[in-house]
Amino acid sequence: MTTHLETEIHEQPEALSRLLNEESEHIADIAGKIRDFDPTFVLIAARGTSDNAARYAQYALGIEYGLPVALAAPSIHTLYHAQPRMNRALVIGISQSGRSEDVRQVIDDARAQGALTLSITNEPESPIAQAAANHIWLRCGEEVAVAATKTYTTQVMALAMLVGALTGRAEMQTALAAVPDHMQATLALADGIAGWVEQYRDSERYAVLGRGYHYCTAFEIGQKVKEMNSVTCEQYSEADFRHGPIAIVQRGFPVIVVAPTGKPLPLMIDLLGKLQARGAERIVITDQPDIQAEQTVMLPSGMPEWLAPICAVVPGQIYAMRLAEAKGLPIDQPEGLTKVTVTR
Amino acid sequence: MTTHLETEIHEQPEALSRLLNEESEHIADIAGKIRDFDPTFVLIAARGTSDNAARYAQYALGIEYGLPVALAAPSIHTLYHAQPRMNRALVIGISQSGRSEDVRQVIDDARAQGALTLSITNEPESPIAQAAANHIWLRCGEEVAVAATKTYTTQVMALAMLVGALTGRAEMQTALAAVPDHMQATLALADGIAGWVEQYRDSERYAVLGRGYHYCTAFEIGQKVKEMNSVTCEQYSEADFRHGPIAIVQRGFPVIVVAPTGKPLPLMIDLLGKLQARGAERIVITDQPDIQAEQTVMLPSGMPEWLAPICAVVPGQIYAMRLAEAKGLPIDQPEGLTKVTVTR
Repeated sequence: MTTHLETEIHEQPEALSRLLNEESEHIADIAGKIRDFDPTFVLIAARGTSDNAARYAQYALGIEYGLPVALAAPSIHTLYHAQPRMNRALVIGISQSGRSEDVRQVIDDARAQGALTLSITNEPESPIAQAAANHIWLRCGEEVAVAATKTYTTQVMALAMLVGALTGRAEMQTALAAVPDHMQATLALADGIAGWVEQYRDSERYAVLGRGYHYCTAFEIGQKVKEMNSVTCEQYSEADFRHGPIAIVQRGFPVIVVAPTGKPLPLMIDLLGKLQARGAERIVITDQPDIQAEQTVMLPSGMPEWLAPICAVVPGQIYAMRLAEAKGLPIDQPEGLTKVTVTR
Repeated sequence: MTTHLETEIHEQPEALSRLLNEESEHIADIAGKIRDFDPTFVLIAARGTSDNAARYAQYALGIEYGLPVALAAPSIHTLYHAQPRMNRALVIGISQSGRSEDVRQVIDDARAQGALTLSITNEPESPIAQAAANHIWLRCGEEVAVAATKTYTTQVMALAMLVGALTGRAEMQTALAAVPDHMQATLALADGIAGWVEQYRDSERYAVLGRGYHYCTAFEIGQKVKEMNSVTCEQYSEADFRHGPIAIVQRGFPVIVVAPTGKPLPLMIDLLGKLQARGAERIVITDQPDIQAEQTVMLPSGMPEWLAPICAVVPGQIYAMRLAEAKGLPIDQPEGLTKVTVTR
């Protein structure tokens, strides 16, 4: 019997296509409003998986469009009833359900102050979709499995489409159009994970490492592995991990390393050597055929770095799912997880 | 034989006093320049422990002075050679050594763009101290132990002094003046940890939880426990932990909970109940005498919430140290750690 999670993971190429076809024009309009508003910075409110999409936005908007991005601390608004000044900001709320009360509070406060507001949700009738002046609808169809997959990759895609529309660079549009096919190829390549995942059944501790554009990928993979398998997982930037936390890695310690083509690659390769010296079980996600590790999951080549996070997370989704299957854990409704988090 | 770490932990009251006495006037001058510049947001560049001080600033500046704070992604500057727009920002670099190359790069880029720049270091002759237009010298004396303690608490104190100077509220000055005595009392109360730490010698996995003003405290305690003891440690906001990650907590799993008086306290108490139901070993840092847990470390009462992070981290410093002693690990030079991180 196929689980909802597996079905939804495999719906990702189609979901990305639909978003591209049906939201591109609307996103171009929003980009025009952003250019007119000319924000001095971006503030993004999100929790959990959506917060990992916000991490992507920090790099993509910073590197490709020169806008600094702050990740909001919603508690400032909800617990302390304070409001940092947002009148010159683009304020974005990201939530698959559109029902996180604290994210809505940040959007409400921002709009009242005169900020330009945008929400990104999978529910156009939800409070957050309605609260913001602008809304991007992810158009994923219902996500039944509690672990978010297609809503995450379409959130990242929506943010990438926004960056493409803001810069107006034609080659970005071409690259965006190729993402659904890359996703299809990624799913095919990741299929082999089921063949070797069983050997990690007894590991209770993990680390997941990325850097730059794949800082978000490391965090999102870590979250999937943790929430589905009741293991602990250290999520780190390569830059921080090598100074200190690497001490936890002893023989047999599984470390997932996100290392596709891109600016951080030489640093990631250097780190892989250090991890090998410590006897780590290195599980590497890469499009580089010459990387040797205990396990490698290949990504299709040719993905530009700024779009690679949309597909590079998928081997992590599948690893988390196959590991939970090997352990006999529930797949669609992991213990302790709730689909809609209504944090106050 | 007393270790450098223990000596430096006990130097904190004196270090805080010195900072108050010798930098207050200078910090008031800097606050005047900030008011004149009227930034639309703050961008803070920092790594590791200093990044936890930056998390404090996000809450303190947001709640008490209404300034939104973004934590920089230095890789944008160093790996991608891009520069988000910072001309309307106050850009702060925090580094005990003043020698993190990526933090310096952010400051250099910011200054070239016309931002108002400020560095906070313990080394007035260091590159970062020299690069910024304004500098706060922590005046801690040399920190020999690799694990940062007095440089962290003085970084947080310096940021609190800046907030006090920006708001100009007299009661904040009174509260700041009382911090060194509170620190002395905190050290005395935390002494009992040595009596029970031994029972956690074999725990390889931890979680540390806080929220709001103590989000930074949870992260900094987690970092000390990890880097000194080669254990893993999940660092979470109460808001995120209860939805999902709580599933990792099984009978005997040690969870350090930072729960002093303050706005998040009712939520933290509710979470303590949920952790008890799962059989967690709850190690609670609080000033509330009626909280029952497997272990409690009392804080002196009377600390206002916005200053509490300066002292609430101290039981975590001492726990990390005493645990490493109980395990026979090196104290002043833990494995894998380097004092100065020169991340590129």
